[in-house]
Amino acid sequence: MIEAAAGRLRGHVRETPILSSPFLDEIAGRRVLVKPECLQHTGSFKFRGAWSAISALGNEDRQRGVIAYSSGNHAQGVAYAAAQHGISSVIVMPSDAPQLKINNTRALGAEVVLYDRANESREEIGEALASERGLTLIRPYDEPQVIAGQGTVGLELARQAAEMDVNEADVLVCCGGGGLTSGIALALEGHAPGLRARPCEPKGFDDVKRSLATGCIQSNNATAGNICDAILTPQPGQITFPILNRLCGPGLSVTEDEAMRAMAQAFLRLKIVLEPGGAVSLASALYRADEIESDAVIVVASGGNADPEVFAKALGFLT
Amino acid sequence: MIEAAAGRLRGHVRETPILSSPFLDEIAGRRVLVKPECLQHTGSFKFRGAWSAISALGNEDRQRGVIAYSSGNHAQGVAYAAAQHGISSVIVMPSDAPQLKINNTRALGAEVVLYDRANESREEIGEALASERGLTLIRPYDEPQVIAGQGTVGLELARQAAEMDVNEADVLVCCGGGGLTSGIALALEGHAPGLRARPCEPKGFDDVKRSLATGCIQSNNATAGNICDAILTPQPGQITFPILNRLCGPGLSVTEDEAMRAMAQAFLRLKIVLEPGGAVSLASALYRADEIESDAVIVVASGGNADPEVFAKALGFLT
Repeated sequence: MIEAAAGRLRGHVRETPILSSPFLDEIAGRRVLVKPECLQHTGSFKFRGAWSAISALGNEDRQRGVIAYSSGNHAQGVAYAAAQHGISSVIVMPSDAPQLKINNTRALGAEVVLYDRANESREEIGEALASERGLTLIRPYDEPQVIAGQGTVGLELARQAAEMDVNEADVLVCCGGGGLTSGIALALEGHAPGLRARPCEPKGFDDVKRSLATGCIQSNNATAGNICDAILTPQPGQITFPILNRLCGPGLSVTEDEAMRAMAQAFLRLKIVLEPGGAVSLASALYRADEIESDAVIVVASGGNADPEVFAKALGFLT
Repeated sequence: MIEAAAGRLRGHVRETPILSSPFLDEIAGRRVLVKPECLQHTGSFKFRGAWSAISALGNEDRQRGVIAYSSGNHAQGVAYAAAQHGISSVIVMPSDAPQLKINNTRALGAEVVLYDRANESREEIGEALASERGLTLIRPYDEPQVIAGQGTVGLELARQAAEMDVNEADVLVCCGGGGLTSGIALALEGHAPGLRARPCEPKGFDDVKRSLATGCIQSNNATAGNICDAILTPQPGQITFPILNRLCGPGLSVTEDEAMRAMAQAFLRLKIVLEPGGAVSLASALYRADEIESDAVIVVASGGNADPEVFAKALGFLT
């Protein structure tokens, strides 16, 4: 399915390069290779899964349009992929999502429906609207075609790492519901068995790390109250968790300040823009070096839709 | 020479991707393709020319080491390329260069010699040190092997544009002494005759624009006092100008505020970090649309070594 998705994505999705800096290697104490999915269309890897899911629909279903619920990056990915397919989209977003993400989603052609993250269920709202209007719901992670699309990051990584003679490494992946991490893990299983995916999360919202440690699904106490808004999910998915549990190494978790410091290093050394939730993997490479054993580490920097105020605050860590 | 340089650079220099955003297309009123050389090693295209020049030296000359004078990006490029070749480098830098660039150059292994930009000649200092110590001087732009290295940006561009079916376009290039612009113009002449290079400069420091308009070399009144420090040169080179004059379209110039606004748009829409001098090409595409005729425009965003304070100021243009 991942290879089929890669075929449908070809020519529509950007192949992101591999970046590096001797200054980051020095902080991490090992070679650090960064795959900047912030450079993907709409600023995050989410466009891959969205394109995969929409392009896999039958023509009749596709023409009726799609719906998604998302804290922002999945929203923009689905909105733009839908617009590029010439179909309509409805996006259900939390009312406290960064204003930039709400604005972008609207500007990309979607109808945005806001909900209260604390008191309402986005799943219920999404499913109700889907059945009312005959739209296809594109789940953010617990959806095989979405996982397959995100897995194309892993296919690219496997080839790029081999070209750089990196055959053994931990692959650190920013992890919310686990769509990206499970897709990459599956791709690596087939194409680069010496590379091992490891999920990275914010401290206090490390449901995946705890789920892997215990072998069964654990939940977070909250889904708000951390600057890494893009990856705050209640628990790993029913489809993603068994994949993560079978294939991934132990999870890693970092503080909000560490995520911000990683954003500052990405600015300074790689010249890329990361959002906090997209920087937890780089933060893990830089500030959890003692929990990593491989000579090289590959960092999937998953998104760059940072509000300017948050980014300016991260820059303050440099002075 | 450009193709030979590309051969020497292979595996050592990053091929930068092509980025785009529907939001930028909307501002510019046409399709905007951006080649982010800020993602190159050391944060600018200068690494290409440095690698080209050092790798072209005979073994004996190379082992004696190299020297360069630069406001910063050429410095970092030469320092890192020298270190990667296992040889020593001396860099002559203006004492008012951004501290980040001075620090980086030292950290990359070079010996840094500071000079007073207002009262001393970097050319004289550089040539004196070179003859004293037997070092090879690597000029920042008026040097055939450096131009050939920068021209590899044009080779990549020609192929990437053809893959995207863009066969006619203006190629906007940030221009100081003209090494990058002339190298790209030569590569396009051979490989993509429908693409035309056009130099972009800060207003008040538009020596190349005026030189092209009059057909003979014109000078700037000053070489300091503008935020676009990376591209403030006294006049086009003796080698670069005849190439520019033969091959380039008319020059474009933008204000400091426009360069900063382009940095903000690059942050918001492309998730890349540009410095002011590396953003004048994007600023020209966005804010000089009436001086461009082609349906598509290609922007070479040449560098990303922005001081955090300057970048934070640019972000202020978004709010």
